[in-house]
Amino acid sequence: MRTRNPFPKKLDLTGRVELTHGTGGKVMAQLVEQLFAAAFDNRYLAQRNDQAVVEPPVGKLVMTTDGYVVSPIFFAGGNIGSLAVHGTINDIAMAGARPLYLSSAFILEEGFPLADLKRVVDAMAKAAMQAGVPIVTGDTKVVERGKGDGVFITTTGVGVIPVGVTAPSGDRAKPGDVVLVSGSMGDHGVAILSQREGLSFETTIESDSASLHTLVADMVTVCPDIHVLRDPTRGGLATTLNEIAWQSGVGFKLEERAIPVKPQVAAACELLGIDPLYVANEGKLLAIVAPHDADKVLAAMKAHPLGRDSARVGTVIEDENGFVQLETSFGGSRILDWLAGEQLPRIC
Amino acid sequence: MRTRNPFPKKLDLTGRVELTHGTGGKVMAQLVEQLFAAAFDNRYLAQRNDQAVVEPPVGKLVMTTDGYVVSPIFFAGGNIGSLAVHGTINDIAMAGARPLYLSSAFILEEGFPLADLKRVVDAMAKAAMQAGVPIVTGDTKVVERGKGDGVFITTTGVGVIPVGVTAPSGDRAKPGDVVLVSGSMGDHGVAILSQREGLSFETTIESDSASLHTLVADMVTVCPDIHVLRDPTRGGLATTLNEIAWQSGVGFKLEERAIPVKPQVAAACELLGIDPLYVANEGKLLAIVAPHDADKVLAAMKAHPLGRDSARVGTVIEDENGFVQLETSFGGSRILDWLAGEQLPRIC
Repeated sequence: MRTRNPFPKKLDLTGRVELTHGTGGKVMAQLVEQLFAAAFDNRYLAQRNDQAVVEPPVGKLVMTTDGYVVSPIFFAGGNIGSLAVHGTINDIAMAGARPLYLSSAFILEEGFPLADLKRVVDAMAKAAMQAGVPIVTGDTKVVERGKGDGVFITTTGVGVIPVGVTAPSGDRAKPGDVVLVSGSMGDHGVAILSQREGLSFETTIESDSASLHTLVADMVTVCPDIHVLRDPTRGGLATTLNEIAWQSGVGFKLEERAIPVKPQVAAACELLGIDPLYVANEGKLLAIVAPHDADKVLAAMKAHPLGRDSARVGTVIEDENGFVQLETSFGGSRILDWLAGEQLPRIC
Repeated sequence: MRTRNPFPKKLDLTGRVELTHGTGGKVMAQLVEQLFAAAFDNRYLAQRNDQAVVEPPVGKLVMTTDGYVVSPIFFAGGNIGSLAVHGTINDIAMAGARPLYLSSAFILEEGFPLADLKRVVDAMAKAAMQAGVPIVTGDTKVVERGKGDGVFITTTGVGVIPVGVTAPSGDRAKPGDVVLVSGSMGDHGVAILSQREGLSFETTIESDSASLHTLVADMVTVCPDIHVLRDPTRGGLATTLNEIAWQSGVGFKLEERAIPVKPQVAAACELLGIDPLYVANEGKLLAIVAPHDADKVLAAMKAHPLGRDSARVGTVIEDENGFVQLETSFGGSRILDWLAGEQLPRIC
């Protein structure tokens, strides 16, 4: 039983975020009730406490967190809200796990239009619902004008590794293993950067932002011992492989012509002077599997709508230097080093 | 086995945060390794993946998240880092739960001194270690100068409700229940505001920022059915009780003279024109318990170092209007309404 509704007025969505929206009074409670809770509606959030009590999982627990500061907030293929849900679900999935619960914490800048906030929140709610993963708890803070940038979102996820699945980990790549990617590289970063630079192409380049947990579920069903799973976000495929090389104490040999890159993304990268292999993806994964598992994992990937363009792109080699080598389309070879210097700030 | 150390140089702590610290390359990896991972060191973080695989709890799972934007970052009694750990541990504890794992996500402003970041991170590491709750995973983003404010931190916590404990919840207050608080009200908010306004008093007013989970553990040991537990942060005791009144469909009758407020906090509040009952606490809790449980819970609270000044401050009454009434020290009565308007922005 609840007493009188303490928020008699309907939230005015033509308004803007004010400092009072963050100070823990009735105005904040109204924003939380009428905007966040209305959009994220689920039985956990309905507990209306500062935390959510949820069912415990059976199996190893997985936890991940990510801050989202992407600029611009709205971009072709999504916005900061859908991205925050997809990105955190993907980090859970990359442990071979099933995502169960999400939390979201907003840092809002005074003056941010409430209508924009609603678009962001609705996109989060839709992404969470489509993924089947509830946002069970959250928080809202407001900072003064000029001390933030519209909206930052930190999402945290909890998931569970199904019994029988061995958790993939960055330190489990072995010489001879095969490297698979689930589709074209660089779409997200190029979508953001094109929009930021005001570039326009014949066809709009859309972010690939998507939740990959059902793809991963199909993969671990055919192969419960995937050695490494990683979503190549900031720094792209090249940086991610350097991290894995370091963690596992191995090297990589990649075939450039085997790595899928959309023609318009390749063209935009040339124009922007960047390398698509260093550009962030938000709806792609790379898997490193034992040679005898490669065909069946690749087949499972290609059978999933988000893995149709999956490809085998290279192998793990012994290399105490931990180099990532690229056999170029012209028959040469070059080292893909760690990303040095800033390529794309605020890409996610 | 790891290959060659990819970070030959030692992080220069006289430097500042740069955009490259957030773009996912070697510079970012160096910051993560040499600053965050070195300070938070634990076997979960040592997995060095984008998520942590942890042991699953036995019992109901609890999840909470909070963004921290406190200004100033450093204050008497703590800093944003210790506050972020204490605050999230407390939100877990307020479900009667034992905190198990924390995550932390940093949003850094370009130009923020690395030495300040290290102070913040060290304070987090110390607070987490003292509480016995590891920070198992994290994230770092960097925004351009003028698009943030030094450092924002979002911490998320996962915990477990011990078997046999009934989860306290804001909707479980019943007429006749007793309201207990664990100590003096308003210390944190007044510490922040005094510092912000440049006020100085004979004795420094320190934030009460502290982890309350061991206090809660002692309380649920003597009473496994505490009806409501809440840490009165933003909006203070008055706003928190209004929220509970709304959730439970009850009213409150409080005795002003029974509510502990330190003399220097009361004096500062008078000077600042604010009411200590609306001011944030970060190391205090309120408990609402059945009348027959009140004495033993109060005794357990007083026996804990963080509950020495605990007091019985009021009772739950039937009131379909959900009013929080205060019997003043002068024998009168007034309604403590929801906080209206902004009192203290960026207090946590």
